[in-house]
Amino acid sequence: MKINSNFLNLKDSYLFSTVGRKTAEYKEAHPDKKVIRLSIGDVTRPLAPAVIEAMHRAVDDMSRKETFKGYGPDRYCYGYEVLIDSVKRSYARKGVSLESSEVFISDGAKSDLGNILDLFAQENTVLVPDPVYPVYVDTNIMAGRKILFADATAENGFLPMPDFKVDADLIYLCSPNNPTGAAYTREQLAEWVRYAREKNAVLLYDAAYEYFITDPALARSVYQIEGAKECAIEFCSYSKTAGFTGVRCGYTVVPHALVREGTPLNKLWARRQSTKFNGVSYITQMGAAAVFTEEGEKQIAENLGYYRENAKIIADCLDELGIFYTGGKNSPYIWMKCPYNMDSWTFFDFLLEKANVVGTPGSGFGKNGEGFFRLTAFGTREDTAEACSRLKTVLKK
Amino acid sequence: MKINSNFLNLKDSYLFSTVGRKTAEYKEAHPDKKVIRLSIGDVTRPLAPAVIEAMHRAVDDMSRKETFKGYGPDRYCYGYEVLIDSVKRSYARKGVSLESSEVFISDGAKSDLGNILDLFAQENTVLVPDPVYPVYVDTNIMAGRKILFADATAENGFLPMPDFKVDADLIYLCSPNNPTGAAYTREQLAEWVRYAREKNAVLLYDAAYEYFITDPALARSVYQIEGAKECAIEFCSYSKTAGFTGVRCGYTVVPHALVREGTPLNKLWARRQSTKFNGVSYITQMGAAAVFTEEGEKQIAENLGYYRENAKIIADCLDELGIFYTGGKNSPYIWMKCPYNMDSWTFFDFLLEKANVVGTPGSGFGKNGEGFFRLTAFGTREDTAEACSRLKTVLKK
Repeated sequence: MKINSNFLNLKDSYLFSTVGRKTAEYKEAHPDKKVIRLSIGDVTRPLAPAVIEAMHRAVDDMSRKETFKGYGPDRYCYGYEVLIDSVKRSYARKGVSLESSEVFISDGAKSDLGNILDLFAQENTVLVPDPVYPVYVDTNIMAGRKILFADATAENGFLPMPDFKVDADLIYLCSPNNPTGAAYTREQLAEWVRYAREKNAVLLYDAAYEYFITDPALARSVYQIEGAKECAIEFCSYSKTAGFTGVRCGYTVVPHALVREGTPLNKLWARRQSTKFNGVSYITQMGAAAVFTEEGEKQIAENLGYYRENAKIIADCLDELGIFYTGGKNSPYIWMKCPYNMDSWTFFDFLLEKANVVGTPGSGFGKNGEGFFRLTAFGTREDTAEACSRLKTVLKK
Repeated sequence: MKINSNFLNLKDSYLFSTVGRKTAEYKEAHPDKKVIRLSIGDVTRPLAPAVIEAMHRAVDDMSRKETFKGYGPDRYCYGYEVLIDSVKRSYARKGVSLESSEVFISDGAKSDLGNILDLFAQENTVLVPDPVYPVYVDTNIMAGRKILFADATAENGFLPMPDFKVDADLIYLCSPNNPTGAAYTREQLAEWVRYAREKNAVLLYDAAYEYFITDPALARSVYQIEGAKECAIEFCSYSKTAGFTGVRCGYTVVPHALVREGTPLNKLWARRQSTKFNGVSYITQMGAAAVFTEEGEKQIAENLGYYRENAKIIADCLDELGIFYTGGKNSPYIWMKCPYNMDSWTFFDFLLEKANVVGTPGSGFGKNGEGFFRLTAFGTREDTAEACSRLKTVLKK
């Protein structure tokens, strides 16, 4: 028996474990200090009441013979039509029309972003931005693919544009971006669509944070760009939109118009999912179906507004301190330049010791992350405000 | 961009769609007839009250800031310890001791049976029984692996034993088996363990139906066999055990002692899951954690007993008719020889027309399934008894 030796090429990721260890050590040495974590990429607000009610009803359905649900419906790879219809309505409001069979309900964008790679040959070349969500890189290392990086830097606002001299087959874009918070305009994204079409490549578009966008110049879906249905797969998530990180639900769009080597990728993905997946809990799907209702949207807007206000508090603080950053608007992430030319880990230690604030060192996301630092808007209002007040104290010149 | 051309080698599966179409056509042509489906592999009994209560409590937890849960715990690949502990207790009752880090909580055995293949090189040779759960074959076709078949026939009681002249690297065993209902004794399974150890192969042991076993001579876990921890991965599911087909939860055991080419497979699987998976809903996990409690086990035993009694009714009927079958005891499936040497589809049509009973043609599960027919115990008591009474009428000599 031979193992998949590509796994041996994976680097151990110590980023979040080192952040955790250093934080724990500091707290143990200083039990009197109140340490505030602005490092978390996880939500803290409870689920919307409309979602809770829908889930209780679904649990009750499972308790009675007459309303009990077994395997999800075959027709759309185990997705319930009520949920798929709500996703289509959400897209329609962005000006994007989808067919039901183009929407695949999943247990989250992370699973689909990894599993989608089953559809592609090993010999494709992958292009990922740097810094980057590590999952894009690791899943392709596991598959033994050649990986190229597109530099995201302060100079390009952490939004790399296509280089037509570079040939890539699979391109990951995440907008609004994790970790940089930067988001592509429609014009910028149109360039990527032009690149993908010219190269016969496929864009893997991670739209997990699109609900944070309020600026109409920014794209909320890659399909708002003409021609994208012929070259892009879009990954969406209820995790940050509706606080579903612990509930696990997302949806992936594979348009029928996306055809490579004469084969519709929609058909391949349907076959992959019907063979290696068995759908998402009925209870979860009913909860998710309550998100994009009038009542649900009103309620999640409150939570999103809460996080956006947190982001604004951090952004205003950095503006006041004259520190360069991306994100903060249209994104739950704030990607700041480390002051005094500190490297990422030096600034981590500085901030932990001087301000008792924890963030994530940018170098953990790739070489271009060195000298940068990620803060998130997912904390409580009180913690966020207090952390900013401490930042001002320790960083004011 | 190149697609994974192995997908083009997949055969379209028309088995269940043809069963569905023929049934629908018959019903449309004969609206007055009451057609009974003994073809379904899906459960029909509602969830146990202990599970329902636990899920309602978990939904309430998600509604309050103080008890809200985001991403599952990192420590055991997003599995909650209360659930992992309950799985360990269930194993302990079978005489198998596991460490928490050997138990991986998943969204179902089907997902894990497919995804586990990420760990193995493409050039491994796979051995699957025939007839077989089609997922074992299709997932390996997608990966471009060479597949060998082990013949399961009436002569070996549909329980193929290892042929030491055949070299295989990955061996699928499913016991109690889908579709044949046949289950290995501990002695038989010990031969497979001996084979796997001698060949340095890995057994992929699908134990989804183990809770139907009552005969102590039969293995309920591959780890009841000495030496299995060094050569086997076991896939378990709450689907049939506790009616979770629509809830989606299972668990996979990858022992630390299972090492190939110097690499512990447990470490590879943990890396795979932490990279391409984000855990199972907190609500689902809390529901599942209620299954292996004193109260939960008492309640699921009632449902299992209901299905077992259905299986017995069918088995008694076939005994009375003098028809050969496997399963029916220690299994929810009954695998019968088609009478009068009919082939599988001829018998399907015969039974539909003469008795208005629907089953699944055995030929859909592989070449050795030709001439056989699968009935399931997952219907209602009334339907099962009525179907058997009709079988007796149309098949009595």
